[in-house]
Amino acid sequence: MIRYQDIRGVIALCPTPAKQGADRWDSHDTVDVDETERMIRNLLASGIDGIVLLGTLGEMATLTESEWRTFAQVAVETVQAFDPDFPLFIGATTLNTRDTIARIRFLEALQVKGVFLGRPMWCAMDEHSIITFYKTIADTFPNISIMLYDNPEAFKGVIPTAVYAELAKIPQIVACKYVSLTPKFRADMEVTRGHIRILPLESDWLQAWILYPDDVIACWSSSALCGPEPVLFLRDALRRGDLEAARWISRRIEWAYEPFLARQNFQEFSKYNIALEKIRFDEAGFVHAGPARPPYHIVPPQYVAGAREHARRWLQLVAAVRERTTI
Amino acid sequence: MIRYQDIRGVIALCPTPAKQGADRWDSHDTVDVDETERMIRNLLASGIDGIVLLGTLGEMATLTESEWRTFAQVAVETVQAFDPDFPLFIGATTLNTRDTIARIRFLEALQVKGVFLGRPMWCAMDEHSIITFYKTIADTFPNISIMLYDNPEAFKGVIPTAVYAELAKIPQIVACKYVSLTPKFRADMEVTRGHIRILPLESDWLQAWILYPDDVIACWSSSALCGPEPVLFLRDALRRGDLEAARWISRRIEWAYEPFLARQNFQEFSKYNIALEKIRFDEAGFVHAGPARPPYHIVPPQYVAGAREHARRWLQLVAAVRERTTI
Amino acid sequence: MIRYQDIRGVIALCPTPAKQGADRWDSHDTVDVDETERMIRNLLASGIDGIVLLGTLGEMATLTESEWRTFAQVAVETVQAFDPDFPLFIGATTLNTRDTIARIRFLEALQVKGVFLGRPMWCAMDEHSIITFYKTIADTFPNISIMLYDNPEAFKGVIPTAVYAELAKIPQIVACKYVSLTPKFRADMEVTRGHIRILPLESDWLQAWILYPDDVIACWSSSALCGPEPVLFLRDALRRGDLEAARWISRRIEWAYEPFLARQNFQEFSKYNIALEKIRFDEAGFVHAGPARPPYHIVPPQYVAGAREHARRWLQLVAAVRERTTI
Amino acid sequence: MIRYQDIRGVIALCPTPAKQGADRWDSHDTVDVDETERMIRNLLASGIDGIVLLGTLGEMATLTESEWRTFAQVAVETVQAFDPDFPLFIGATTLNTRDTIARIRFLEALQVKGVFLGRPMWCAMDEHSIITFYKTIADTFPNISIMLYDNPEAFKGVIPTAVYAELAKIPQIVACKYVSLTPKFRADMEVTRGHIRILPLESDWLQAWILYPDDVIACWSSSALCGPEPVLFLRDALRRGDLEAARWISRRIEWAYEPFLARQNFQEFSKYNIALEKIRFDEAGFVHAGPARPPYHIVPPQYVAGAREHARRWLQLVAAVRERTTI
Repeated sequence: MIRYQDIRGVIALCPTPAKQGADRWDSHDTVDVDETERMIRNLLASGIDGIVLLGTLGEMATLTESEWRTFAQVAVETVQAFDPDFPLFIGATTLNTRDTIARIRFLEALQVKGVFLGRPMWCAMDEHSIITFYKTIADTFPNISIMLYDNPEAFKGVIPTAVYAELAKIPQIVACKYVSLTPKFRADMEVTRGHIRILPLESDWLQAWILYPDDVIACWSSSALCGPEPVLFLRDALRRGDLEAARWISRRIEWAYEPFLARQNFQEFSKYNIALEKIRFDEAGFVHAGPARPPYHIVPPQYVAGAREHARRWLQLVAAVRERTTI
Repeated sequence: MIRYQDIRGVIALCPTPAKQGADRWDSHDTVDVDETERMIRNLLASGIDGIVLLGTLGEMATLTESEWRTFAQVAVETVQAFDPDFPLFIGATTLNTRDTIARIRFLEALQVKGVFLGRPMWCAMDEHSIITFYKTIADTFPNISIMLYDNPEAFKGVIPTAVYAELAKIPQIVACKYVSLTPKFRADMEVTRGHIRILPLESDWLQAWILYPDDVIACWSSSALCGPEPVLFLRDALRRGDLEAARWISRRIEWAYEPFLARQNFQEFSKYNIALEKIRFDEAGFVHAGPARPPYHIVPPQYVAGAREHARRWLQLVAAVRERTTI
Repeated sequence: MIRYQDIRGVIALCPTPAKQGADRWDSHDTVDVDETERMIRNLLASGIDGIVLLGTLGEMATLTESEWRTFAQVAVETVQAFDPDFPLFIGATTLNTRDTIARIRFLEALQVKGVFLGRPMWCAMDEHSIITFYKTIADTFPNISIMLYDNPEAFKGVIPTAVYAELAKIPQIVACKYVSLTPKFRADMEVTRGHIRILPLESDWLQAWILYPDDVIACWSSSALCGPEPVLFLRDALRRGDLEAARWISRRIEWAYEPFLARQNFQEFSKYNIALEKIRFDEAGFVHAGPARPPYHIVPPQYVAGAREHARRWLQLVAAVRERTTI
Repeated sequence: MIRYQDIRGVIALCPTPAKQGADRWDSHDTVDVDETERMIRNLLASGIDGIVLLGTLGEMATLTESEWRTFAQVAVETVQAFDPDFPLFIGATTLNTRDTIARIRFLEALQVKGVFLGRPMWCAMDEHSIITFYKTIADTFPNISIMLYDNPEAFKGVIPTAVYAELAKIPQIVACKYVSLTPKFRADMEVTRGHIRILPLESDWLQAWILYPDDVIACWSSSALCGPEPVLFLRDALRRGDLEAARWISRRIEWAYEPFLARQNFQEFSKYNIALEKIRFDEAGFVHAGPARPPYHIVPPQYVAGAREHARRWLQLVAAVRERTTI
C-alpha cells in the first residue's frame, strides 16, 4: 500500500495522450501508447514524487473501458519498471459503486497500489452516501490506497468537513486532491491531519504550508505537465524553508495562470477543463496530449488563446527557474 | 421510426425492477425479469400510450452494462409482442458520446425505434456541445427516434431555448421529457412546435395544454407506475375538452404530491430520486420496484414517510377516479 | 381597508415618472408630478382595476424620502379624487422594520388603505423572520391592507409555501404580487386560497386561472403601462370564459415579450430592471417614465434594443386588440 | 485624508451598542451612547490600529437615520479626542447613490476622514455600475478616503478582479474589507497592490501575508471586539517575522472559530450575522453590544450555543496570549 507518509512532494496529474482523430465519435483505440510511456518516463526522470492518472483532465469520463484498460496497463508497467513502490494513483470513477469495484478489480490484478476516486455524479450524494461509498470501496479492497478527488463542479458539491472527519477514520484513504484554499481548508486540515494527506494545488501550496508545515508537504499539479521545474523548485524551497524563494516562484506561477480560464472562472472552466488542459499541454510541449475525446472536444475560441498564453508564460517560468537554479 | 405525430397521451416512466439484495455492492444480475415483464404487460393493458425506460429513476446510472442489456431485451420483447409500433424509448445515457453510440448499436440490433437521451454529465456542457452531441447521435442513427431528457439537476443545467431551436431542426428528435412549467416553457414551445413533442409532467399538463391545445397532447408520468388511472382520466378529459374534469383530477394529483419531496424541494429530491421513487412504487403496489442500487440506495428516514403518504394518496385517487368513471 | 374580495381584474404596476436629469447624482426633486397625475388618470380612465406604486421598477430604492412623500401624495390625491375606494397599494419597503413603519405612518395620515411590502434585503431573512416582519406591520396597522411583494432576486429568496401558510392567517394580508408559475405556485395556492389573492403576471394568468378559476381572478401587469388594452382584453376574455380569446391574447403577449430580457434571463434582468422598464415605457409612450435614478441608471446597450423592440410589439398588440374588439 | 500608507495593523469592526428593548419595533433612540464611548476608548487604549463602524454587524441597515447620526457623532468625537488622525471609517451604505451622498455630507461636517462603503443592494449591480457608483462618491468628496466593503452575500456578488483594477485608479479608495482567501485573492492583490490596502480577516492574515509581506500589513477583525489581544499578538508576530508565533496564534484563532456559524456556513451565517455577532460580543464581555434591531433580531437557538462557545474559546485565547506574552 501507499501510506500517508509516502505522499510528499509534487504529485503530477496527467492527461491521457490521444492519437489524431480521437475527437471523432467513430474513433477507437485512441490511446497514444508511445506518448504515454514517454510522458511517464519523462516525469519520473524529472524527479516528480507521485503520479495521478485518469481524473477529469485524464478523460476518465470519455475513454471506453477498453481504452481505459490499455492506458492503465501501459502506465502501470512503465512506473513499475522504474520503481514498484512509486506513488501511483489510477482513476476508477464511474457512474456507480459496482462499476467502480469492477474497475479496481482490474487494477488490483495489475498490482496497482493506489486508486484515485471521485464519486458517482448523476445524482448529487449526501454526506451519509459519500461516506458509505468510500467505506464500501475501502472494505472491498483492504490493500489498496485511495486518493480522494474533491471537485465540487464534477461531483456536485464539496466534500463537507464532517465527511472528511469520517473518511479520516478509514485507513485506506491516505490522500486527497484538494480543490482550493478557502476558510474550509483549515477546518478540513484539523479533522484530517495525520490521516489524509490534503494536497493543495501548487499555487496554493505556500499559503497552505505556512499554517501546517508538518502536514502540507505535498501538492498536486497538472501544470507540471507543462514542465515540472517550477513546481519542483517550489518543493525544494519549502523543504529548505526558503520563504523568499517559495514566494518568488509562487507569485510567478500566479502570473502564469493569469490568462488561464481555470483561474478566472472555475465554474466556466469546468465546462472546458479537458480541452483547455490538453491545449496548454500541447502548447508547452512537455507532453503531446492530443485532441480531447467527445463530447468534451469543443471549446470557445476566446478561451483557447488564454490557455496558450498561459503555457507560454509557464515556459518562461521554466527558463527563469533554470537560470536561477544554475546561478 | 416513432414520429412526432405518434406521441400522444400518457407516456409512462418506469423503474427497473430489482431483486432482493440489489442494494448491495456485491450483487449481480439484479434485474427482476419476471416483474419487468409483468410491469410492462400491465402498463400496456391499462391503455397507456408510451413507455420510457432507463432514465434517472430507471437506474441508468447504476445498472451494470450486462444488466442494462438484460433489462432492455426483456422490455423490448414484451412490448414488441404486444405491438411492434408501440412508442417505446430506451435510455442510453452514459458518460460520453462513444459509449452512448455503442449502447444504441445494441438497441438497434433489437429493432428498438426510440431512445431516451440525457447528456454526459461529468462536465457541464455548453450550448454548442449539447447541439453537437445530439446531432452526432442523430447522424449516426438516421432511423432511430430520440426523446430528449431535460433534467437540470442530473445534467447540470436546463436545455436553453436557443438549443431547443437548433434541436428542433434534427428530424430524429421527436419528443422531450420536459422538466416543469416556468416562463421558459412558452419560449421553448414556440421554437419546437410541430417538431419536438414537449411532454410536461402530468400535473402540469392542463396548464400547458390550455395554451397549446394542438401541440401539448401528451405528458410524461412516473406516478402512472403507482396506478395509471388518474393520468388516463386526465388524458381523456383533455381529449374531450372537459375542463371541469381536467381541473378536478389535476388538483387532486397536486394534493397527492403534497407530501412528496419531489414537489417540496426538487434539488434536494434529486439526491434521493431513485430510492424515493421506488419506495412510492412499492407502497402503491402497481409494480414491485425493489431496492435501489448503490450508491443511491440511501435515503433519510424523514423523506421516506412522505413518499409513502404520497403513494397512499395516489391510491385514494385511483379509487376516486374509478368511482367517478363508473358513475 | 381593501379586502381580498376587492382585488379582481388587472392591477397595474407603475413607474415613478422622473424629470430630465434624474439620473444624475446631484439631482433633487426629481418626481415629474404632472406626468404622475396624467399617468394615473389615464390608467383609471382605461378601466384598470387596481394600481400598485413604488416597487422595484417604481424606484422605491432610489427615491429620496422627500421625493417618495411627494410622489405618494400626488398619487393618492389623484386616485382619491377618482374613487376613494379604488384599490391602491403604495410601496413602503425599506432596509428595516422601523423605517417601514415610519413610512406607513405617513401613508396612514394620507388615508391610504393599502401598502405594497417587500422585506428588508441587506441580510436574507429566514422563515420565522419573514413571518414576524409582516405580522409586526399588520399588528401595528390593523386598518391597512398589505400586498406582499414576492421577488426572489430583490429579497434574496422566494416566500416559501410554509410562510405563505402562516401569512394567510394574517387578515390584513390580502394580496401578493407573485413571481412566476412553477410547481410551487400550486402549493402556494392551496395554502392561501380565500385569504391572499395571488396575482400572477398577466402572461401567466390563463395558465393560473385554468386551475383556480374562482381564485385567480386578478393579475399584475407592468406591461399595462405600455398600453393596458391587451391585458384588459385578457381579463374580459377570462371573465366570460372565452378560452379561445384568452389563448389568442396570451400567446401574442408572449410573442411581445420574446425580445425582452425579463423573459430571457430573469436574474440578469433584475440587475437592469428599472432602466429597462422605463425604456420600454418611454418607447411605447403611454407614460413618460423618464430616466432611471442612480445607481440603477446604467444598462448595457445590447439589452436596450430588446426592450424597445418589445415595446413596439406591444403597440402592435394594442392595435390588434382594438381591431378585434371593434369587429 | 487617510492614506493607503496609514492603514497598517489591526482594524476593528465594531457593533453599534444598543439599549435594552432595541429589538422592539417601537423602540427609538436605541443607541447606547455611554457604551459606545467606552467601547471606542477601550479599543483605542488596547493599541488597535483602526476602527470601522456601521457595516453589516454595525447595523447600518437597521438604525434610523437619527440614530445613525447620534452614533456617528459620539464615535467621531471620542476618536478625535484621542487622535484626530486615527484611522476611522464610518459606514454610509444606503439603498442609493443620493442617500449615501447625503450621509457622507453629514460625516464631512463632522471632519470625518474615512467612510466604509458597500453598494446599494436592492438590485445586484454589474461591473460598470459598481465602478460608476464608487467613482461618483469619490468625485463628490475629493478629500474623504473610502474603504470598500466586499461582502458577496450582502451586496449580491463579489467585487470582480476587473472592477478592483478600475477602483485602484481612484485615489480616494485606499482600503478594502476583503471577504476571504480564494484563488481570486491573488488576482485581486496583483491589480490593487500599492493602491488599495486589501484587508484579510485576521484568521486569513498569515496566509495572505506570506505571499505579499510588503502589502498585506493590516487585517480586519470583528473578533477583536471579543478582546483584541489575540489579533494584536498576531500583528506583532508578523511585524517581527516570527512565523512560529504567527502560526501558533492563527491555528488557535481557527480553533476558536470552529463552533461559530460564520466559519461553518457563511451563506447561512449571513442571515443571522448581526444577532450572532452581538451574542458573541456579549458573551465575551469586552463590549456590551445589546440586542439586535428588527428585523434581524431573530436567530435559531441551535446557532446561539455555537456563538457563545466560540466566545468562550476566544477568552481562553486571550488568557493564553497574556500568559505567553508575560513569559
